[in-house]
Amino acid sequence: MGRTSEVKYMKTIRLNVKTTAHTQMVDVTDQIQKAVTESGVREGICTVFVPHTTAAVTINENADPDVVRDFTMEINKIVPWEDGYRHMEGNSAAHLKSSMIGFSEQVIIEDGRLLLGVWQGIYFCEYDGPRSRKLLVKIRED
Amino acid sequence: MGRTSEVKYMKTIRLNVKTTAHTQMVDVTDQIQKAVTESGVREGICTVFVPHTTAAVTINENADPDVVRDFTMEINKIVPWEDGYRHMEGNSAAHLKSSMIGFSEQVIIEDGRLLLGVWQGIYFCEYDGPRSRKLLVKIRED
Amino acid sequence: MGRTSEVKYMKTIRLNVKTTAHTQMVDVTDQIQKAVTESGVREGICTVFVPHTTAAVTINENADPDVVRDFTMEINKIVPWEDGYRHMEGNSAAHLKSSMIGFSEQVIIEDGRLLLGVWQGIYFCEYDGPRSRKLLVKIRED
Repeated sequence: MGRTSEVKYMKTIRLNVKTTAHTQMVDVTDQIQKAVTESGVREGICTVFVPHTTAAVTINENADPDVVRDFTMEINKIVPWEDGYRHMEGNSAAHLKSSMIGFSEQVIIEDGRLLLGVWQGIYFCEYDGPRSRKLLVKIRED
Repeated sequence: MGRTSEVKYMKTIRLNVKTTAHTQMVDVTDQIQKAVTESGVREGICTVFVPHTTAAVTINENADPDVVRDFTMEINKIVPWEDGYRHMEGNSAAHLKSSMIGFSEQVIIEDGRLLLGVWQGIYFCEYDGPRSRKLLVKIRED
Repeated sequence: MGRTSEVKYMKTIRLNVKTTAHTQMVDVTDQIQKAVTESGVREGICTVFVPHTTAAVTINENADPDVVRDFTMEINKIVPWEDGYRHMEGNSAAHLKSSMIGFSEQVIIEDGRLLLGVWQGIYFCEYDGPRSRKLLVKIRED
């Protein structure tokens, strides 16, 4: 039920994501798939990691743009921007939203492709933009 | 502090989960443990991935069923089903709840068993059911 | 673009975390970095896993302590401690908060260091303390 292969070390890839709004979800699926394709890895796991504290990464619908619009509107209601926070930068809500959404995603690689559901896209979630952000991608071959 | 082993490729397992309510948490621990046992892997990591956008996976208490009841009731309050959403399918709340709970879990495999706390179970979280869903399980040996 | 290496099996490390308040975020970055350093692994992935149901792990800012204070205050508002819950232990809010924040983090290891953003720390999140807790750390070499 398997084949042997050398374990290869592949350097973590740094992708750039430039956000243009305060709260924004940027579809980064194609950038990540490109990194997977260029790696030549056919089977494995892709770890996507956000090295920030006021941005996150998630997976969600890539078809109707109103999903992202509703998602953004509602999470901003659930975690209000102002609420007697003490943190001097004034962006505590961004810190909490990021932890709620999460700083990494693990996506299976199968036949050289990210194994995503038909409606799934990978989204960089900006919560204190606009900024120039980084996204780390580590590809590990089986 | 180690032993050498061949790195084997194991195809990602597709499990079926049939949900029977609009919002529901289904304990899938046994199904996943069965997949781990059948793989023969003794030490490694099990990645559980949900290829949907209105369902998620989490870990939580497997003893008192009221935990799941309370969990479901409260998350439905925090993310209301109706709130002026635009998405034509009307299920934006399910999309947001899924991202808040998350689309994957990583569980350590030790001595052929999922290394879970004594009260921990793995739950498939349906937020727009009832539906026939898939759950992907990738087992990677150390 | 790589080198071969033996795949080594490394036993999962058990760390102790003693919490001293009901809701608390404990910075565990140094403990985990120490485990990575002692393992000798230069490149790989570190999985941090919480084997509990009323505690979690996240990544957030390690500079201004008011971030953690605000984070804790706001999540306790979003998920109220009392809300007609049925679970006899009375800590359903802790169960939900833990699932929202999450039970594991995956951190890339590069040059023997946890690859974290400059302001990122790894936090054990206690939601029903004070207690003596465990944190599992699995280090996998590329």
